[in-house]
Amino acid sequence: MLIIMGLDSPRKDIDKVKQKIIELNCTPHEIPGSSKLAIGITGPTHLLKEEDFQMMPSVQEVVRVTKKFKLVSRQMKNENTIIEFDKHTIGGKELCIIAGPCSVETREQTFEIAEQLKEMGIILFRAGAYKPRSSPYTFQGLKEKGLEILAEVKSKLGLKIVTEVLNSQSLQSVAEVADIIQIGARNMQNYSLIEEIGSLQKPVLLKRGMAAAVEDLLLSAEYIAAQNNFNIILCERGIRTFETATRNTLDLNAVPVIKQWSHLPIIVDPSHGVGIWDKVPQMAMAAVACGADGLMIEVHHDPENALSDGYQSLTPKKFKELLSKLNELAPIVNKELKLYEHAVSL
Amino acid sequence: MLIIMGLDSPRKDIDKVKQKIIELNCTPHEIPGSSKLAIGITGPTHLLKEEDFQMMPSVQEVVRVTKKFKLVSRQMKNENTIIEFDKHTIGGKELCIIAGPCSVETREQTFEIAEQLKEMGIILFRAGAYKPRSSPYTFQGLKEKGLEILAEVKSKLGLKIVTEVLNSQSLQSVAEVADIIQIGARNMQNYSLIEEIGSLQKPVLLKRGMAAAVEDLLLSAEYIAAQNNFNIILCERGIRTFETATRNTLDLNAVPVIKQWSHLPIIVDPSHGVGIWDKVPQMAMAAVACGADGLMIEVHHDPENALSDGYQSLTPKKFKELLSKLNELAPIVNKELKLYEHAVSL
Amino acid sequence: MLIIMGLDSPRKDIDKVKQKIIELNCTPHEIPGSSKLAIGITGPTHLLKEEDFQMMPSVQEVVRVTKKFKLVSRQMKNENTIIEFDKHTIGGKELCIIAGPCSVETREQTFEIAEQLKEMGIILFRAGAYKPRSSPYTFQGLKEKGLEILAEVKSKLGLKIVTEVLNSQSLQSVAEVADIIQIGARNMQNYSLIEEIGSLQKPVLLKRGMAAAVEDLLLSAEYIAAQNNFNIILCERGIRTFETATRNTLDLNAVPVIKQWSHLPIIVDPSHGVGIWDKVPQMAMAAVACGADGLMIEVHHDPENALSDGYQSLTPKKFKELLSKLNELAPIVNKELKLYEHAVSL
Amino acid sequence: MLIIMGLDSPRKDIDKVKQKIIELNCTPHEIPGSSKLAIGITGPTHLLKEEDFQMMPSVQEVVRVTKKFKLVSRQMKNENTIIEFDKHTIGGKELCIIAGPCSVETREQTFEIAEQLKEMGIILFRAGAYKPRSSPYTFQGLKEKGLEILAEVKSKLGLKIVTEVLNSQSLQSVAEVADIIQIGARNMQNYSLIEEIGSLQKPVLLKRGMAAAVEDLLLSAEYIAAQNNFNIILCERGIRTFETATRNTLDLNAVPVIKQWSHLPIIVDPSHGVGIWDKVPQMAMAAVACGADGLMIEVHHDPENALSDGYQSLTPKKFKELLSKLNELAPIVNKELKLYEHAVSL
Repeated sequence: MLIIMGLDSPRKDIDKVKQKIIELNCTPHEIPGSSKLAIGITGPTHLLKEEDFQMMPSVQEVVRVTKKFKLVSRQMKNENTIIEFDKHTIGGKELCIIAGPCSVETREQTFEIAEQLKEMGIILFRAGAYKPRSSPYTFQGLKEKGLEILAEVKSKLGLKIVTEVLNSQSLQSVAEVADIIQIGARNMQNYSLIEEIGSLQKPVLLKRGMAAAVEDLLLSAEYIAAQNNFNIILCERGIRTFETATRNTLDLNAVPVIKQWSHLPIIVDPSHGVGIWDKVPQMAMAAVACGADGLMIEVHHDPENALSDGYQSLTPKKFKELLSKLNELAPIVNKELKLYEHAVSL
Repeated sequence: MLIIMGLDSPRKDIDKVKQKIIELNCTPHEIPGSSKLAIGITGPTHLLKEEDFQMMPSVQEVVRVTKKFKLVSRQMKNENTIIEFDKHTIGGKELCIIAGPCSVETREQTFEIAEQLKEMGIILFRAGAYKPRSSPYTFQGLKEKGLEILAEVKSKLGLKIVTEVLNSQSLQSVAEVADIIQIGARNMQNYSLIEEIGSLQKPVLLKRGMAAAVEDLLLSAEYIAAQNNFNIILCERGIRTFETATRNTLDLNAVPVIKQWSHLPIIVDPSHGVGIWDKVPQMAMAAVACGADGLMIEVHHDPENALSDGYQSLTPKKFKELLSKLNELAPIVNKELKLYEHAVSL
Repeated sequence: MLIIMGLDSPRKDIDKVKQKIIELNCTPHEIPGSSKLAIGITGPTHLLKEEDFQMMPSVQEVVRVTKKFKLVSRQMKNENTIIEFDKHTIGGKELCIIAGPCSVETREQTFEIAEQLKEMGIILFRAGAYKPRSSPYTFQGLKEKGLEILAEVKSKLGLKIVTEVLNSQSLQSVAEVADIIQIGARNMQNYSLIEEIGSLQKPVLLKRGMAAAVEDLLLSAEYIAAQNNFNIILCERGIRTFETATRNTLDLNAVPVIKQWSHLPIIVDPSHGVGIWDKVPQMAMAAVACGADGLMIEVHHDPENALSDGYQSLTPKKFKELLSKLNELAPIVNKELKLYEHAVSL
Repeated sequence: MLIIMGLDSPRKDIDKVKQKIIELNCTPHEIPGSSKLAIGITGPTHLLKEEDFQMMPSVQEVVRVTKKFKLVSRQMKNENTIIEFDKHTIGGKELCIIAGPCSVETREQTFEIAEQLKEMGIILFRAGAYKPRSSPYTFQGLKEKGLEILAEVKSKLGLKIVTEVLNSQSLQSVAEVADIIQIGARNMQNYSLIEEIGSLQKPVLLKRGMAAAVEDLLLSAEYIAAQNNFNIILCERGIRTFETATRNTLDLNAVPVIKQWSHLPIIVDPSHGVGIWDKVPQMAMAAVACGADGLMIEVHHDPENALSDGYQSLTPKKFKELLSKLNELAPIVNKELKLYEHAVSL
């Protein structure tokens, strides 16, 4: 349930509403919009009555949310959620580009790629220090050592860091380095971890699980929002179907569906989605054309020798060509590719 | 197997090669390109030896085709197949747009929509006279009466007709009206019908089945090509997955895969693909952005009262807005939206 | 809608009800049960009112059918449909076993297998004369010649023939030989063909399509029932999923679902379902354990040299071992394995 | 890679082999069989040469393992792994039955069901104290309180406890109560947690993820085996497909596949697999018929008022009927339903 109040409602009226919600064994969540203030309610809301709130001072409207997910639904908040980083944003007009190698392999490899990306104007750098791998015998990431390298990339090059966390034990150290904490597809329903990450109040990149319906993805996001953390970026990265021509089936249909059902930003990872580098640029273009707020793309300067997922990585050269095409495409879908401003002078 | 010869090879050399293929119990297919002539060979090719052909006059090269599909593979013919209609083409630079209602419902409804589309410059008009329906108790199309209406649209408005055929019995009468004969998703593995349609040598629009891998689709196309009919337009229209947020899962990944594996044009039907009109424009844009040669879109002037699939049809107004966006997008992916030239003067 | 009358209702009362249905632009279907007579109604039944029939003589009850499929639903007819063949039945207590090679390859191969099966007491012999194949370059069956061989098996050995029909053109000749006409998975939504086969009033074996939900299968069966042909045997043969460890994913869950939703018999084809011979016996046992009315199993005396699907065929020896296990299992699920009575004396 | 030695090889020969493996930067795993001792090798085994070991004393054979999973593969250990509990076993001749409610709801409810099950002779009791739920607003289990109730069931009734762990934080307290620690489908690829659980050396019940291929399941099991913990029970519980007639698609094909690929026991959970109680008995029978080593079944004395998954729970009465049918079925597939011996005297 949702209580709509004026943005300029007196604090005492707002607190009275929140107090009443708590008395009724539910939890209030303040969700400020540009013209209204919404108080989202979660908990056993089926026990609440609209009349309990309709006559309270400053209350303009009481709305039932029909979806299973509440706080992340478009019904709860009509305006797009926009996440801010210094001068940059995700979820608004700006097209967000996250790029980098699958894994931190060595200090040299990481800096090599990070520097090339910075030169192109990229702001958000991705690379895994902890890697979830289906076999225990394959490269599992440099772990702590990898985080140290990422911290150095951050301090020396000024790039923002997006990196995955696999468990509670390493969450603190990942959170110290990461500007955006990534939850991978395999952990999309690891609710314990999600809740714990959500409670840190840092931006979270939540990837769709391989067998997750869009509704499931939004319910997982709800676990984060229920911690009063709305800094959530959803990520479509391919689902499992019978088709074997591509590694996964990138489900771009999820983009307009999520835009309709939720106020959260949605980006697309075509690298995992198709799993073969030579089809990544086409699917990246398609993702933006259907309304994605951004892209997450694997870039490696030496794909053949990458320790993980090399076959789905673009070379910096191919990636630059893609950026140039995206720059042409963005304005057609009312987006803007805003690259790091001193890019050329590096 | 594939025999590459010079384009200007003497006819007697070509005939000698074809004669030899026939003697070896295989079938030759002449596939002329812009600089070379290829003789495709189908049948028990594992019995053939490269040496049988390498020394024959005018033969430049002998190539094994490794895919299960042969004549439709990119290995067999490197250049894109371009299908020509008067001054228009499918598979080349021109972006092909097929539009119209799901079904012919009445003469009035059909002309109403067709006239509006013609005014927008649309050349290819789609509408079903025969409708395959999962329940025997729902509207099955106007059948012969529907074909008559389509024939009138063709003669009076000069539009080209795309319409589906369901069986051998009505093939002749469909073929008289249709400029492009459509094979629906449910019949993609009805090989008897496909072969019979293929043998008519008319352009065929082959829709991907709901559980068909891209390889299966190309193998079905191979049944048509094996009749020496290369006028084949493939169509992605959504596959069946666990996701229920959309009617089907439009698999745009198939577009770059098909572009790599085959020389045939591939178009996309976002109306069936997502199944909800308000997500059709986004997916149409995405389809073109990832390299599709065209679109097939359902348009109805009164969707709420459509006899079939109204909820996935765009109104003419929405469709026109989409055309305008596509016109902006096309040049970025090296395509051109060429509409009917006297559009405005109608 | 369904009109329930006494079994001994006077013919004139029955005819009066049927007459009224026709007047209301719907179609009546007599469905006799063991204690009641039901008149099923199809067509625009939403226009009918219960009151139209309730007061008519001999009418006991008027029932709405809520499923999309009507005549084949358990609501329409509570008792199991039992199909009779001489002294044998499908859909009752008897466990039906259909066995034989994928294809008729030669007269010798067919007789070799048929004779061994007859010796084991098998009554229903399967073998394809027309084979739908995903590639146009693989063996497509002996066609007319194959039917002749099957006719000879029938006349000489007295086996009943189950064989697939692919198109309208060959339907007449298939129907002359076949005791049960098979519609393959690829043609499950080829409604033209299904309707035509249904109208012949012969038993039909309808295989589930690879992407067909149980509801779709029952809707296809409804096309046959709407021809007043209730001799329909449904067949589960595996669906397409992401799992590649087996050729298809045999969906045994469909068996109890169909038993609940429909009165039609359901058999299982584990050979196509798992696609690897060494897992066929286990899945055959499972099928019977969960309530299937029978099995359809590929048997070949020389699987390595079979022209199609050899890797999923049991040898006669393995098949005999399976029969012996099935014989132990059947009584536990209230079935009986009734083999050809003079089996041993052959 | 695998080194086969005699069971009675001198310890010094065994140690020499293990020493050599360690020198080559790999890890040795002793896997004793009934007639041979195998030393499994994991790590960068592609660097090892057969010749390094072939001539060492007591070594009989050196074998390459071709599957991605190694220690859990049938190649590595030909005999079935049998897990022992007092006088009972899982993976051998005994058919293992795990039963109980989805969740611990109250002390009364838990004892009510546990006592009825004990009376029927059930030894392994399942109930969740921690429940992973797709929505944050649904019942998440009684947590610590639930574990206390389970501990009481264990001490008072002598039942063995099977219960799920969701995270590292509660692992220690779950492990104190649980005789078998369950890893749910949603955590099948939560490798951090799996590894940590595996290292406890207690029996682990590993459920297949909804989008996990059998190979993925075995690779997850490999994470446990790599901790030298072979007490692993695999569990098939349904995968996600397009079919919506059942909650999931119980994939019984996985049973014979796993029996062929791995030496680990495999049980089946038909309650989650079909998700509707009235189809659970049929699928339970089918699971045993195709070779499963056991079943995990939800039983609730008051399903309509269960706090989770009531619609898929059997009543004790229905469950008892199923036990009786399983008792008839077991010997046919060479199994034995061994219930708690003092069952009747309780």
